[in-house]
Amino acid sequence: MPEPAASLEEIRALMAHLPGPDLEAGTAAALRESHLTKPAGALGRLEELAAWMATWQGRHPPRLEHPRTVVFAANHGVAARGVSAYPPSVTAQMVQNFINGGAAVNQLCQMIDADLRVYEMNLETPTADIVDAPAMSEAECARAIAYGMMAVEPGIDALAVGEMGIGNTTVAAALCLGLFGGEAADWTGPGTGVTGAGLEQKRAVVAAAAARHRTPDADPFELLRRLGGLELAAMVGAILAARMGHVPVVLDGFVAGAAAAVLYATDPRALDHCVAGHVSVEPGHTRLLERLGKRPLLDLGMRLGEASGATLALVLLKSAVACHGGMATFAEAGVSGPG
Amino acid sequence: MPEPAASLEEIRALMAHLPGPDLEAGTAAALRESHLTKPAGALGRLEELAAWMATWQGRHPPRLEHPRTVVFAANHGVAARGVSAYPPSVTAQMVQNFINGGAAVNQLCQMIDADLRVYEMNLETPTADIVDAPAMSEAECARAIAYGMMAVEPGIDALAVGEMGIGNTTVAAALCLGLFGGEAADWTGPGTGVTGAGLEQKRAVVAAAAARHRTPDADPFELLRRLGGLELAAMVGAILAARMGHVPVVLDGFVAGAAAAVLYATDPRALDHCVAGHVSVEPGHTRLLERLGKRPLLDLGMRLGEASGATLALVLLKSAVACHGGMATFAEAGVSGPG
Repeated sequence: MPEPAASLEEIRALMAHLPGPDLEAGTAAALRESHLTKPAGALGRLEELAAWMATWQGRHPPRLEHPRTVVFAANHGVAARGVSAYPPSVTAQMVQNFINGGAAVNQLCQMIDADLRVYEMNLETPTADIVDAPAMSEAECARAIAYGMMAVEPGIDALAVGEMGIGNTTVAAALCLGLFGGEAADWTGPGTGVTGAGLEQKRAVVAAAAARHRTPDADPFELLRRLGGLELAAMVGAILAARMGHVPVVLDGFVAGAAAAVLYATDPRALDHCVAGHVSVEPGHTRLLERLGKRPLLDLGMRLGEASGATLALVLLKSAVACHGGMATFAEAGVSGPG
Repeated sequence: MPEPAASLEEIRALMAHLPGPDLEAGTAAALRESHLTKPAGALGRLEELAAWMATWQGRHPPRLEHPRTVVFAANHGVAARGVSAYPPSVTAQMVQNFINGGAAVNQLCQMIDADLRVYEMNLETPTADIVDAPAMSEAECARAIAYGMMAVEPGIDALAVGEMGIGNTTVAAALCLGLFGGEAADWTGPGTGVTGAGLEQKRAVVAAAAARHRTPDADPFELLRRLGGLELAAMVGAILAARMGHVPVVLDGFVAGAAAAVLYATDPRALDHCVAGHVSVEPGHTRLLERLGKRPLLDLGMRLGEASGATLALVLLKSAVACHGGMATFAEAGVSGPG
């Protein structure tokens, strides 16, 4: 596990030292795949996932015995502007629901035997309202990133990354607008279910926040500090630590994707160890995945957050690894190859 | 379990007595769903699947503790025309591979704890070459349907339906052309990997077979007899028996879909207890799912058959049932509703 970083400067410096792909492991996976008892390519993306897992775990065969799902929860000053269908108190209530095992992600983690970790991040102290001020100080942002890094511990072999935070699709939209430009409407959607005048208000908030903080001197980490939130910063840390620790990552929906985009905007190779678990119906997510060059694994009309889509996609990684490792070769099974 | 039918007439007669949806169970599912701790609709298709499972199991809450994956294997006279990249001997070799646990479907069944059953159907005796003659006699076809029915036993709560049979994408294409019309090229694809002149030859075979057998007097069961194969007839039986036994069905790829299409062409409501587990890259499958009005659950570029896509999709049904049954309500969890 990387040492908790003390400043944004140190975290920026880490970006110059990202481990690259283990091409030897990836090649070994491709070679074995070609001998397994099926027509070449017949398992489609499962074959790609097996090679990708090998490449980023840096070993062949890849393994997936200890997946972890992480949910970072935080509150946002901007939620006071009525940008969500739910009151901010729901963040803490849902954290309690996670602890009690009553949320969707609990059932999904139980089903696929993923280790669920929920991280409460100062729920009683929302970040500053991004329309008026930067969300976090430098120290707060760096601390949140370092906190997120601690979610990656030895022995984990895949990480599903998600969040909970009333108001955070507003923050994510503002961050995407800051990072990639466009119009507020491109990135702003209903979130938990805001429509009509509420959605118009949400768009105006996103536009105002991005206009205030998107300055020529603001690099992606500075935009994260100004427009993001504690859970987004923690997700940045978790994704970064996973890269350092050779742990492949499954990204959840729009908010997790917006956090990941901070790394992508800094270095497009920084997300090569990540897959998009699903595409959410939050409209900005489709656009964001296009920007990140990620094809989602699942498209099930979900928009819940709390790492639910990413956790479900862990099943596909498990399937890929199970087929790759467990199938017989043509020679072992005595099956004739193509004639 | 329905009694094995003795004739195609008796099977046709069954079609008039298909159990309908249990709307009470479906309504109970929709009601509970609206109280669970998430924004309404936020689990997308998982919510639809939970209600669909309740509707077709005829109980609320739905359960999925004993899924079964069935793979019917058979050989085809038409395979002698070189329509596959693999020799017909591979069908029996792959059945042995299933028995030994070395195929993709073995790993997938193990991962999601599905009961795998493999049914060898006279592998040493291929059906007649459909270019020259009907594939099966009336008695053979009826027996194969009845055999497939026996795969549905008490206690099973979902059924993934698939097949193995060198040459059977040719047969499936001919059957689709017989049932729905169009051009041979609309329904004929590479299968295990036939391209170029081989694919042209495969299209010509499909066109010739359909031209021979598609007569105005041939109803869908008669087209199954003339253009199908033993494993397709068995899948028809399994799907039908599942309907009678209140067991929701997950269809695998193009060949399983072609078998299901026989029932659909007889009565469009006959597949309401079925979902499409995935869409295969076999090009006819997309067209077929459109005809059947089925939106696939997964789109992973798979084209293996052997119920691999359907088995993988069972995970989504399990997830849907787990979330529906296990999540806390807003009242139970003390979570505020939309404000």
